[in-house]
Amino acid sequence: MDLLIKGGTVVTASGSFQADVAIDKEKIVAIGKDLPVEADRVEDATGMLVLPGAIDVHTHMQMPFGGTVSADSYKSGTRAAVCGGVTTIFDYPVQHKGETILGLVNSKKEILETDACSDYAFHCCITDLNGGQILEEMEQAAEAGITSLKCFLVYKKEGMMVDDGMLATLLLRAKELGMMINVHAENPDLIDLRTEQYLKEGKTSAWYHYMSRPEFVAAEADKRVVHWASHLDTPVYIVHMSDQEGLEACEKAKMDGKPVYVETCPQYLEFTCDVYKRPDGRNFVCSPPMKGEASKEALWKALKAGFIDTVATDHCPFQSYEKDWGKDDFSKIPNGCAGVENLYPYMLDAANTGKISFEKVVEVCATNPAKIFGCEDKGAIAVGKDADIVLYDPKKDFTISVNNMHSDYDHTIWEGKELHGYPVKTFLRGNLVYDHGEFVGKPGMGKYVKRIPRR
Amino acid sequence: MDLLIKGGTVVTASGSFQADVAIDKEKIVAIGKDLPVEADRVEDATGMLVLPGAIDVHTHMQMPFGGTVSADSYKSGTRAAVCGGVTTIFDYPVQHKGETILGLVNSKKEILETDACSDYAFHCCITDLNGGQILEEMEQAAEAGITSLKCFLVYKKEGMMVDDGMLATLLLRAKELGMMINVHAENPDLIDLRTEQYLKEGKTSAWYHYMSRPEFVAAEADKRVVHWASHLDTPVYIVHMSDQEGLEACEKAKMDGKPVYVETCPQYLEFTCDVYKRPDGRNFVCSPPMKGEASKEALWKALKAGFIDTVATDHCPFQSYEKDWGKDDFSKIPNGCAGVENLYPYMLDAANTGKISFEKVVEVCATNPAKIFGCEDKGAIAVGKDADIVLYDPKKDFTISVNNMHSDYDHTIWEGKELHGYPVKTFLRGNLVYDHGEFVGKPGMGKYVKRIPRR
Amino acid sequence: MDLLIKGGTVVTASGSFQADVAIDKEKIVAIGKDLPVEADRVEDATGMLVLPGAIDVHTHMQMPFGGTVSADSYKSGTRAAVCGGVTTIFDYPVQHKGETILGLVNSKKEILETDACSDYAFHCCITDLNGGQILEEMEQAAEAGITSLKCFLVYKKEGMMVDDGMLATLLLRAKELGMMINVHAENPDLIDLRTEQYLKEGKTSAWYHYMSRPEFVAAEADKRVVHWASHLDTPVYIVHMSDQEGLEACEKAKMDGKPVYVETCPQYLEFTCDVYKRPDGRNFVCSPPMKGEASKEALWKALKAGFIDTVATDHCPFQSYEKDWGKDDFSKIPNGCAGVENLYPYMLDAANTGKISFEKVVEVCATNPAKIFGCEDKGAIAVGKDADIVLYDPKKDFTISVNNMHSDYDHTIWEGKELHGYPVKTFLRGNLVYDHGEFVGKPGMGKYVKRIPRR
Amino acid sequence: MDLLIKGGTVVTASGSFQADVAIDKEKIVAIGKDLPVEADRVEDATGMLVLPGAIDVHTHMQMPFGGTVSADSYKSGTRAAVCGGVTTIFDYPVQHKGETILGLVNSKKEILETDACSDYAFHCCITDLNGGQILEEMEQAAEAGITSLKCFLVYKKEGMMVDDGMLATLLLRAKELGMMINVHAENPDLIDLRTEQYLKEGKTSAWYHYMSRPEFVAAEADKRVVHWASHLDTPVYIVHMSDQEGLEACEKAKMDGKPVYVETCPQYLEFTCDVYKRPDGRNFVCSPPMKGEASKEALWKALKAGFIDTVATDHCPFQSYEKDWGKDDFSKIPNGCAGVENLYPYMLDAANTGKISFEKVVEVCATNPAKIFGCEDKGAIAVGKDADIVLYDPKKDFTISVNNMHSDYDHTIWEGKELHGYPVKTFLRGNLVYDHGEFVGKPGMGKYVKRIPRR
Repeated sequence: MDLLIKGGTVVTASGSFQADVAIDKEKIVAIGKDLPVEADRVEDATGMLVLPGAIDVHTHMQMPFGGTVSADSYKSGTRAAVCGGVTTIFDYPVQHKGETILGLVNSKKEILETDACSDYAFHCCITDLNGGQILEEMEQAAEAGITSLKCFLVYKKEGMMVDDGMLATLLLRAKELGMMINVHAENPDLIDLRTEQYLKEGKTSAWYHYMSRPEFVAAEADKRVVHWASHLDTPVYIVHMSDQEGLEACEKAKMDGKPVYVETCPQYLEFTCDVYKRPDGRNFVCSPPMKGEASKEALWKALKAGFIDTVATDHCPFQSYEKDWGKDDFSKIPNGCAGVENLYPYMLDAANTGKISFEKVVEVCATNPAKIFGCEDKGAIAVGKDADIVLYDPKKDFTISVNNMHSDYDHTIWEGKELHGYPVKTFLRGNLVYDHGEFVGKPGMGKYVKRIPRR
Repeated sequence: MDLLIKGGTVVTASGSFQADVAIDKEKIVAIGKDLPVEADRVEDATGMLVLPGAIDVHTHMQMPFGGTVSADSYKSGTRAAVCGGVTTIFDYPVQHKGETILGLVNSKKEILETDACSDYAFHCCITDLNGGQILEEMEQAAEAGITSLKCFLVYKKEGMMVDDGMLATLLLRAKELGMMINVHAENPDLIDLRTEQYLKEGKTSAWYHYMSRPEFVAAEADKRVVHWASHLDTPVYIVHMSDQEGLEACEKAKMDGKPVYVETCPQYLEFTCDVYKRPDGRNFVCSPPMKGEASKEALWKALKAGFIDTVATDHCPFQSYEKDWGKDDFSKIPNGCAGVENLYPYMLDAANTGKISFEKVVEVCATNPAKIFGCEDKGAIAVGKDADIVLYDPKKDFTISVNNMHSDYDHTIWEGKELHGYPVKTFLRGNLVYDHGEFVGKPGMGKYVKRIPRR
Repeated sequence: MDLLIKGGTVVTASGSFQADVAIDKEKIVAIGKDLPVEADRVEDATGMLVLPGAIDVHTHMQMPFGGTVSADSYKSGTRAAVCGGVTTIFDYPVQHKGETILGLVNSKKEILETDACSDYAFHCCITDLNGGQILEEMEQAAEAGITSLKCFLVYKKEGMMVDDGMLATLLLRAKELGMMINVHAENPDLIDLRTEQYLKEGKTSAWYHYMSRPEFVAAEADKRVVHWASHLDTPVYIVHMSDQEGLEACEKAKMDGKPVYVETCPQYLEFTCDVYKRPDGRNFVCSPPMKGEASKEALWKALKAGFIDTVATDHCPFQSYEKDWGKDDFSKIPNGCAGVENLYPYMLDAANTGKISFEKVVEVCATNPAKIFGCEDKGAIAVGKDADIVLYDPKKDFTISVNNMHSDYDHTIWEGKELHGYPVKTFLRGNLVYDHGEFVGKPGMGKYVKRIPRR
Repeated sequence: MDLLIKGGTVVTASGSFQADVAIDKEKIVAIGKDLPVEADRVEDATGMLVLPGAIDVHTHMQMPFGGTVSADSYKSGTRAAVCGGVTTIFDYPVQHKGETILGLVNSKKEILETDACSDYAFHCCITDLNGGQILEEMEQAAEAGITSLKCFLVYKKEGMMVDDGMLATLLLRAKELGMMINVHAENPDLIDLRTEQYLKEGKTSAWYHYMSRPEFVAAEADKRVVHWASHLDTPVYIVHMSDQEGLEACEKAKMDGKPVYVETCPQYLEFTCDVYKRPDGRNFVCSPPMKGEASKEALWKALKAGFIDTVATDHCPFQSYEKDWGKDDFSKIPNGCAGVENLYPYMLDAANTGKISFEKVVEVCATNPAKIFGCEDKGAIAVGKDADIVLYDPKKDFTISVNNMHSDYDHTIWEGKELHGYPVKTFLRGNLVYDHGEFVGKPGMGKYVKRIPRR
C-alpha cells in the first residue's frame, strides 16, 4: 500500500464518518475503521476532514482577452489550484474562426503536459461552426474526452456571440453525442446599448459596468436558454449564474424535470454590486458582474435547497495595471477576477461556520462536477476513485492575501477575507502536492482527464 | 472480522463502485478493493449489488382498525420485511384518548422484544393532547428515541382527527425539541359529505371509495399543511403523497427552502384509480386511494427530480373476508393493503429497468429515511454504520404472489407483478436473516432503534 | 320629464363624456348633448361629475354582536349612506339556529319599510342548514330576490362557523339556483389558539388582535375557499379581502377563468396594522384586521390591474364605551368600524388625486356590485336604469369628522382624513335625498331591491 | 337632427339597454328612451343591436410582400371593411431603410384621401433608426397622430428585423412620448434554422410552415418582449398572439400590473394547425401560423377572463395563383389571409351563440382599440362620439363565401363558415355606407383618424 490516511473524518456528498483511507497506485483502495494494512506512508489525519479534491470546472488560464492575456499561466494557475484543494481544473480555450476543436485543444494540451500542477480537462468555446464541420468533429472531440462545449450569448461585437439558431443546433447535436453545452447567458444587445449610452453620458466608473448589465439583462438570456433547452429537450449547463430571476427560471425548469444545470461562483455568493462603488471597483469587474442583495440571497437559498449544481470560479485574473486601463472608461477594464485557490476554502468556511453542510460543499465542488462532466475517476472519496484528497483542518484560521496565494497576479478581490478552517494538505492521485502553505508538487505532474459522454 | 462481502458493487446514494465490505461486531468496518482481511465468513457477492437495508418508515402492524386488526402481526410483518430487504420498520401505534406516548409505545415494544424479526422504531399517532400533558411528555419521548409523531387530519367522526389548532401546536412544540410531525392529509368534511351522498344515491362500489376522496380532497389538506409549516417555519413530513396538486404545493415550498418532506408509496407509483373499477376493487382500498394517471406521472417525475424524500409502504393488509365486508358498501371496507415485502424489490426493479437510478432507490428507501428520522446508525453502506445489508441479484426474475410472500395475509394487490432483479440475501446487523426465498432469522433478533432529535 | 341634469360629465365604467341626463318616473330616459327636453326640475351640473349612486354591498346595521348591537340603526345607517353617495346598501342579517331565510329577512324588511333612507337588499348569513331544509328554502329565497348567502368560516366557538362540508354543500346548491355564496375567510382554529395564548401571556392590547389573526391566518382560508370553488366549479365571492397571499390565490384562479370574486374595503386600502399600536388602537379593531404594508400595496395593485371586483365597507360601528370593554383584553372589543358614508368619497378622492381612474371607481363601487349581485336596475348611468345619481364636485375639499357624518356613532376611524372632491347631491330614483351636507330625504323612501339570479 | 336610430338595443362595453340614438353633424348627440327629437332620417332598429363600428387595428392593404402586393387595395380593403361593420382600419406601412415616418405615411395618406371607404389610421413598421433620426422624428409623428409604431422581431434575412437593442430604444422613446410599440414576436433564428432543415430534408408542404415556427418559437419571443417591457417599465402591444405559453407570460405580467397589451385574431380562435394538413393548406399560411388545440383553447379562455385586449385581423390576402408559388416549397408561399370583413361578424356570432357576451365583443373590437390607440372619438355608442354605428340583426343567418365578400381576393379561408346573426347596416359618421349586403358609400368618404398620445 502506498499511503494510509488514518483517523480523519471522511466526507462524502451523502454523509460523513470516521475512517481510514488506503491508497495504492494513485487510487483509493479501501476505506475503513482501523484498516489493518501496512503502507509506505502513513498520514495522521486525526482532527482533520478528509475531502475529495475539488474540481474547478470554470477557469481561464493564460487566456487572450481584452487586449492582454489573463495573469495566470497554466503553470501558476494549476499551482494555485492545488494549493487551494482543487485537484482538477477545466480550462476554456476559445476557438478562433475556422479553427477545429481538437486543433485548439491540442495546442493547449501541449503546454499543460509540461506545466500542469493539477489534473486538467477542457470545455471548448465555439464561435463558428465552420460551415457545419464542427458538428461533425464533435464526435471525435467526444471520443477524445472533450464532452462539453461552451457558447457565449454575449460578445456580439467581438464576433464571439452564438445566436439562437447556432445554439439550438449545438444543443441538439450535443444531445445526440451525450455532450453538454455550457452557456454564458447575458443579452448582448442591451449591454451594448446601455454601455454606449452611459459612455456618451460620461458615466464611466466601474459602477456603470454593473449598470450596463444588471439583473434583468442576464435574466433575459437565462430564461431564453432555459426555454430552448426545455423545448428542444436537451441538457444545458448555465455558467456563473448570478441573478435571481434567471435562477428562478432554472429552478422552475428543474422542478419540471428538465436537465438544466446551474453553476454559480463564490464572488456572487460573497459580494454585491456595491463593490463597484468602491474606489478600486474596477478590480471587481467581471462578467457577469456581481448583483444586488436579493440575488445574492437567492443564490444561497438555491444552494441550500439543491438548485445549484456546481460552484466554480471563472478564474481569470488580470494585473492591476491592466485593470487601470479602465479607470476612466469601464468598458476598457479587462473582465475577470482571481478565484481558483479560494473556491474550496471559501465554501468550506461556509460549512465550518454553519451556513451549509460539508456534504453540500463536497457535492457542489467535487461530486457533481465530476458527474455532470463525465470524470468517472474523480469527485469522491470512494473505493476505485483517484486518490485526489484534501486534508482540511477545521480549526486553522486563515486570512486571504495576495501574499499567501500561489498565483502570479498582484492583487485579489478576496484580500482580507477571514476564513475559519483551511486545507493543510492536498494529494493529487496519492501524491502530496501541497503541504501547509507550500506547493510541494512539480509542474508536469498533472494529467489530462479524458471524460466520458453522458449516458 | 466476522464477515467479508467480496466482489459486489456497493451502491450509495451518491455513487456506486466495486468493493469488498468488511463487517465486525454488527458494524461495517471497512470498504475496499480486495480488502486484505480474514473473516469468519466470506460472502461472494460477485455480480451482486451490495445495498443498505431499506427502512420502511410507514407500517401498521397488528393495528386495530375498522372493527378488526391488520392482518400482519409484528412477528409476521417484520419477517416479511427482512425477506424483502427491509431491515428496519417504523410502526404507527395510535394513541387512545388519555393515553401517554411512552405508555403506548412501551406496550408495543414489549411485544416486539420477543417477536421482532427486523429492527424497529415508532412514530406515534396523537389524537388527544391530554390537556397539554402530551406537549410536556414529548420531551421524554424524544429522549426515549421517539422523535416523530403523526397527526391524522381525517377520521373526524372516528375521533382521531387533529384540527388546525392542535396541528399548529404540535408543529411548534416538535420544532423546539427537534422532533418531526408526520401528517395524513385529506379533508375530512368533504370525504364525509361525499361518502354520505354516494351511499344515499346507492353508489356503493369500491369506485366510490375513490370518488369520495379524489385528488382535490387530498390536495386541499396537503396545501393547508404546507401553508402552516411554511408560515410557522416548522418542518413537516407528509405521508403517502398521492396527488399532483398537493405534490406541487410541496415542490414549491421546497424550492422556497421550506423543510417540507414528502413520502410516497409504491401503490401510487404503480396503480391508478382504475383499479377500483375491477371486480376485486375493494382489495385495493386504502386511504388515500390511488389517483388518476396525471398524479401517477407527477409522482414519478418528482421522484426523478428529487422532490420525493422517501418511499414507504403504509403496509396495513387485511384478509379477503374482511375486505368483503364492504362488498355492498365501500365505507365498510377496511382501509389498507400489503407492501412491506414489496417496497425494495419494486423500487429496485424500477432502477434495474432504467426508470431511475439505483442510487436514487438507495436514497429514498434507506439514506433519506435514516437522515430524516434520526437513525444515525442506519441507511448506508458506510464505515461505522450497522451492517444492514442486502445482496441484490439484478439478473434474477421474480413474480410476486401471495404464495411467495412471508406475511400472514391471504391476497396481495401485487399478485402477478413481474420484477427483474430480486434480493437474495439480507443481513441484519451482520446476521443473515434471509437467504434465497427463505427466512433464516429468529423472532426477537430485531432491536429497537433509538433515534436522535434533529439538529 | 321630471328632471334634467345638464352640463355635467357622465362617468361610466367604460368611459366618460359630457352630456345631459334626463329622468322621468324614477328612471334615466335619455343621455345626450344639449338634450332638447323640458323638465320639471333642471339641475345645473356644470363642472360636476355625474355618477351612478354607489352600492355598498357589505353593511351590518343594528346587528347584535359581541354582547351589544352595532351603533347604526337601519334609519341612521341608510341616512348616512345617501349622504355619502351610496344609494343602495346590502345588509347581512345572521340566521339563528333553526331560523328560515325568509323569516329572518322579513323581520328586517319590516323595519326597513318605514326606516330606509336608501334602497336596500339582503345577503343572509347562514349558520345552520336546519337539517337540509335551508337547501330547499334557497329556491324560494332566490325567487324573493335573496340571491346571495354568506358563510363565516370563523366564529367556531360562537357557533356561527360553517365547516368545509357545509360550505361545499351551499356552493353546489347556490350554483344550481344562480345564487352566490359570500365567504368570510379566516382560520378559526389558529385565531382561537393564538388568542388564548396571547391572553395567557398577558398580551392584551389591540396589537394582539392583529397578531392573533395576521396575514397567513386569513390567507389559509382564502386559499381553501378558492380551492373548493375552483374544484367544485362554483362561483364564490370573498368578502373584505385584506391580505396579499390570499389575494394572489384569487388572482391565479381568476387568470385560470374561475368565477372567484373579490371584495376589499377602504380601511384595508388606507390603514395598516400599525394603527393597532396607537393608544386608541381598539377603535380600529375589526375582523379581519388591517394588515402590513405589503398587503396594502398588493390591494392597490390588484385594484388597478382589475383583480378587485368590488369595494364595500363592512360598515359595523360601535360606540366608544363599547370599544372600551376591550381596553385590557383585545378579545372583548366589539369588532367593526364605520364606513358607509366614506366609501364613495374615499374612492373618488383616489381617482381625483390620480391614483386610479373615475371609471374604475364607478366600476367597483356601482357597476360590478350591481352585476355580481343581480341588481339589474342599478349601477350605471345608462338609459333604463334607476336614476340613482350622485353629483360630485371635484373641487370641493372635505375633512372627515364624526361631526360632519350622518350616522349615530360617536367616533370614526376616518377622523381627520382630508379628501379632495366630495359629493354635493344624491338622487335616489330621481328624488333629491342629499344636498350639500344635509340629508333632505325621508325615512321610508328607500325600497327593497329584488334581485335576479345569475345567468 | 340628421338621424335617429329608434328602438334598438344599444350595446356598450359595460352593458346593454334599449334606447334611441340621435345623430347630428356626424356625432352621437343623444341616447334615450323614446327621444323626443325630429330627424331628417329615422332608422327603425327594432329587433336590432346598435353597435359601435368595429376598429380593425391590424391590416395590410396593398402591401408589397413576398415578391408581390397584398390583394386588397386601400379601396377594396376599406370597402370590405365597412361591409363587415369595421368603420376604421389601421394600416401598417413598412419603412424602407432611410425613409422617414411622415414621408412613408404621407405617401399612403395620399392614396387613401381619394380611395378610403372607411376611416383610417397608421401604425408604422420601423426597420431602421436612420442613425437616430427616427427617434427625433417620433415627436412630430406623434403630433401628426401617428402614436404607434411596430417592430418585427422576425424577418432577419429580409432586413426587417429589429434587434433587442433597437426594440429597447424604441420602447423607451415611445414611453416618453406617450406612444405605443407594437411587436410581431417570433424568433427569427429558430425559424430560419428549422426552415432550412425541413427544405433540406424535402419536407416542403404547408405543414412545415407550421413546423418551422411552432408554439415554442413564438413563445420565446413573446416572453422576451414581456421581459423587456416589464423591466424597462414601458407599455407594449403584442400583435396576433397565437400561442399558449406566450399568452400566459402576458397574463402573468398583466396580473403584475404591467402595461402589456395583447391582440389576437379570429383565425387563431377558429382554426388549428391541422388546416396545414389540408390539400389547400397553403391558403391558410400566415405568420404566425395557427397553432394546436391547446393554444386555441387558451386564447378563448383568456378572452373570457379579460386577458385579450383586442381582436383584429392581420388582413393581408393574396390571390390563389400567388399562394400556388409555394406548392412545392412552403417558404415561397406569400404569408397572409383575408379577414377584415369577417372580424365583427365572426366575433358577434360567438356572442350570439353564447360563447362570450356582446359587451365583450364591443370591448375588444371597438372600445379597447380606441382607448389603447388614442382614437378619442371612436369606439363606443356614447354621447359625443363619432356616429360609427352598426345595426346587427341577431336573427339573420349568413354563410361566408368569397362571392358575398367585398374584397378583391379570389378565395378566403372563411369559405363556408356559417354565422348566426349578421350586420345589416353600417353608418360611418352618420352616413350609411353599407346596407343589406351592398356597399352604398363612396371611396374618399373615409377620413384620417388623428390620434392622441397616451396620458
